[in-house]
Amino acid sequence: MAALPGLIGLPAANPPIPLAAAPAEVIGLLTALFVILVAAKAGEEVFRRLGQPAVVGELAGGFLVGPHALGLVQLNDTLTVFAEIGVVILLFQVGLEVRVDDLIRVGRPAVATAIIAMILPIAAGAGLGLMVGAEVGTAAFLGLALAATSIGITSRVLADLGVLDRAFARVVLGAAVIDDVLALIAIGIVSAFAAGSPLEQALVLAVAAIGVVVLGFFAARRLRGLRREAFTWPLFADTPLVPAFLIMLGLALVTAGVGLAALVGAFIAGLIVAETEAHDELEHEIRPLALVFTPFFFAVTGAELDLSALFDPSIAALALALTLLGILTKALGGIVGAWGLGRWSAVTVGFGMVPRGEVGIVVATLGLTAGLLDGGTFGAVLIAVVATTLVAPYLLAWSIPRAARDERHAASPRDGGG
Amino acid sequence: MAALPGLIGLPAANPPIPLAAAPAEVIGLLTALFVILVAAKAGEEVFRRLGQPAVVGELAGGFLVGPHALGLVQLNDTLTVFAEIGVVILLFQVGLEVRVDDLIRVGRPAVATAIIAMILPIAAGAGLGLMVGAEVGTAAFLGLALAATSIGITSRVLADLGVLDRAFARVVLGAAVIDDVLALIAIGIVSAFAAGSPLEQALVLAVAAIGVVVLGFFAARRLRGLRREAFTWPLFADTPLVPAFLIMLGLALVTAGVGLAALVGAFIAGLIVAETEAHDELEHEIRPLALVFTPFFFAVTGAELDLSALFDPSIAALALALTLLGILTKALGGIVGAWGLGRWSAVTVGFGMVPRGEVGIVVATLGLTAGLLDGGTFGAVLIAVVATTLVAPYLLAWSIPRAARDERHAASPRDGGG
Repeated sequence: MAALPGLIGLPAANPPIPLAAAPAEVIGLLTALFVILVAAKAGEEVFRRLGQPAVVGELAGGFLVGPHALGLVQLNDTLTVFAEIGVVILLFQVGLEVRVDDLIRVGRPAVATAIIAMILPIAAGAGLGLMVGAEVGTAAFLGLALAATSIGITSRVLADLGVLDRAFARVVLGAAVIDDVLALIAIGIVSAFAAGSPLEQALVLAVAAIGVVVLGFFAARRLRGLRREAFTWPLFADTPLVPAFLIMLGLALVTAGVGLAALVGAFIAGLIVAETEAHDELEHEIRPLALVFTPFFFAVTGAELDLSALFDPSIAALALALTLLGILTKALGGIVGAWGLGRWSAVTVGFGMVPRGEVGIVVATLGLTAGLLDGGTFGAVLIAVVATTLVAPYLLAWSIPRAARDERHAASPRDGGG
Repeated sequence: MAALPGLIGLPAANPPIPLAAAPAEVIGLLTALFVILVAAKAGEEVFRRLGQPAVVGELAGGFLVGPHALGLVQLNDTLTVFAEIGVVILLFQVGLEVRVDDLIRVGRPAVATAIIAMILPIAAGAGLGLMVGAEVGTAAFLGLALAATSIGITSRVLADLGVLDRAFARVVLGAAVIDDVLALIAIGIVSAFAAGSPLEQALVLAVAAIGVVVLGFFAARRLRGLRREAFTWPLFADTPLVPAFLIMLGLALVTAGVGLAALVGAFIAGLIVAETEAHDELEHEIRPLALVFTPFFFAVTGAELDLSALFDPSIAALALALTLLGILTKALGGIVGAWGLGRWSAVTVGFGMVPRGEVGIVVATLGLTAGLLDGGTFGAVLIAVVATTLVAPYLLAWSIPRAARDERHAASPRDGGG
């Protein structure tokens, strides 16, 4: 009888039939979850049939049913919790794909590429921001959003093109991982600054951030080969999943507790678990959870996207400038950092680092949450992030055959020459 | 700076450090989810080490951290949504274990046992309720809570004792399934009555409920052998999981929409999917989701449990009476319904139907939600449900060796004699 609380905006079609199962609010929240998951998957389907990346379709689906378009779903805390768990599981999965030794063993080109291809876009993005008169914090976020390479999207593109075993692919992956870790630390630090805390606090947070990451690496190396039984000794744990899920959520809350992003802890949890004997089983078991949860992150992000800001020509211009800078600086970083691999391989390394994907979106969302990006700038950053993701497969399709020819002629420079 | 909204009751230990990842409310909700999941698993661990059923441990863990004990977690909509999805996935899993043909092919003893072992406890529970002066609706809920056999717990006990292939086990499983379906329909109808709707509306709901169930059975038979590709034709569906998850959630919302419990739709979705070629893969893929989600259902239910009501001697007496009636009526139902199997097999069938488990808890929760069970009566019903679950393994350990001896002497009456 009482009006549905304004949690979801679906037309109030329900007659006043008593709902036996659960209170009406809960059914309303379940309906919102259902609608946004359907929208994400429908968006993915359309975009994939058009040959576009799945993640962009999920964003578009969420945007379509969200408050800035059809208004079928209003955002609420429960949806945000699902989105947050989605990105936590995604970064846990990324961590699972990475071995600590690969982060250390990566040759000079990977390290050089990571550093150059991080500094250039930060400098370019921040410079652009300052040029157009933005605050320092906002400018820093613009740079950061351009800096973070998405290891998830990068590896998916390389796998789709069947070149994961090539030298340039290994350098891209190594550099992207280093880039990811640097970006995760930088995100934590910059967003602490962003919230206006004093310098000492930011310094403490920086030390805490590095400390947590270093401790995580140390733990990962110390726990190498940890037996499966370390996870399954509790009687409740027939498989390692529930203990690992609790470790993931627990470390996410620890990093959130020291002011870092929750996903940093999830990434470290993934790194740690990746070294143990439970790795393969967990990679397998976390997948169904990722399939169900991660779409909420992209769809809810899409629902936050206010495209009307693009009607403003200055914002549209900003989006275009960010996109071009994002592509050029990464390509240049790869060319300078990985030149020893050969010309086309170096170009491919650069192009492979172009997609920003989820990490770029995370940075933009953090900036929005911290109040440093307004709706318009957030929209411009998101367009640039999406554009780099859209363009990367085309760039790679152009450079990879050439890089492969290079490699056949050269003496298979597997460890990057240097 | 602003006080944490009163969503979780953890001591406000967090210093005012800016949380980069997500708003403080979201971190608070994630913390509540973490605490209740840890409590559920710790409770399970302790109870299993004491040789007690896991599900009782999850209830106890939730009770311990909940508002009626330590008060570490307050209930909120997000927790309830996780609990609801937990029970939806649980009933989907139960549906996946059941074949429509097994429901139809079960011999006379299974049907007779199901009906007798459903009517007797309803009559006894309702009679007890009326005797102590309860309203008709409340009395009906007392009867229903005693009537519903938990197929989940029953099959787990039979599997643990390694007798799933025995004739009595097949009759218990068949009868429990019929019992489950009857109870699910009855729950929907009684809870509609309970909410005070007119008789015609309840009649419409009854027809709708039976219609949905019959349609579901029909769909399950028609879709038998449906190829895996029916689930994986969308590009977004590498595996059948996400389409099946959407079907499950969609049917749950449909049944909720006609006034039935959401879990009825989830059970039907499981029945339908069980007949398709995607069955094995889905049984495998839904498991990680069940491992993470279902503990929330039991722990949140435990958190709702107000044991202080038991200090009232009249409520303690009610709990004891319900427990004894629950055991005796089910045992009698088995003995009368399955007598043709031999004396000890028949007793075992009855004992096998004693555990109420999750379905009994669902009934009690519905009664509480509908306002028909007060906190004290809810506590008494829950104690009785828990007690039947606790006692069943001991009863079966006593009767099964005798039933197995019976069976060796008899001419292996596989189809129940009649």
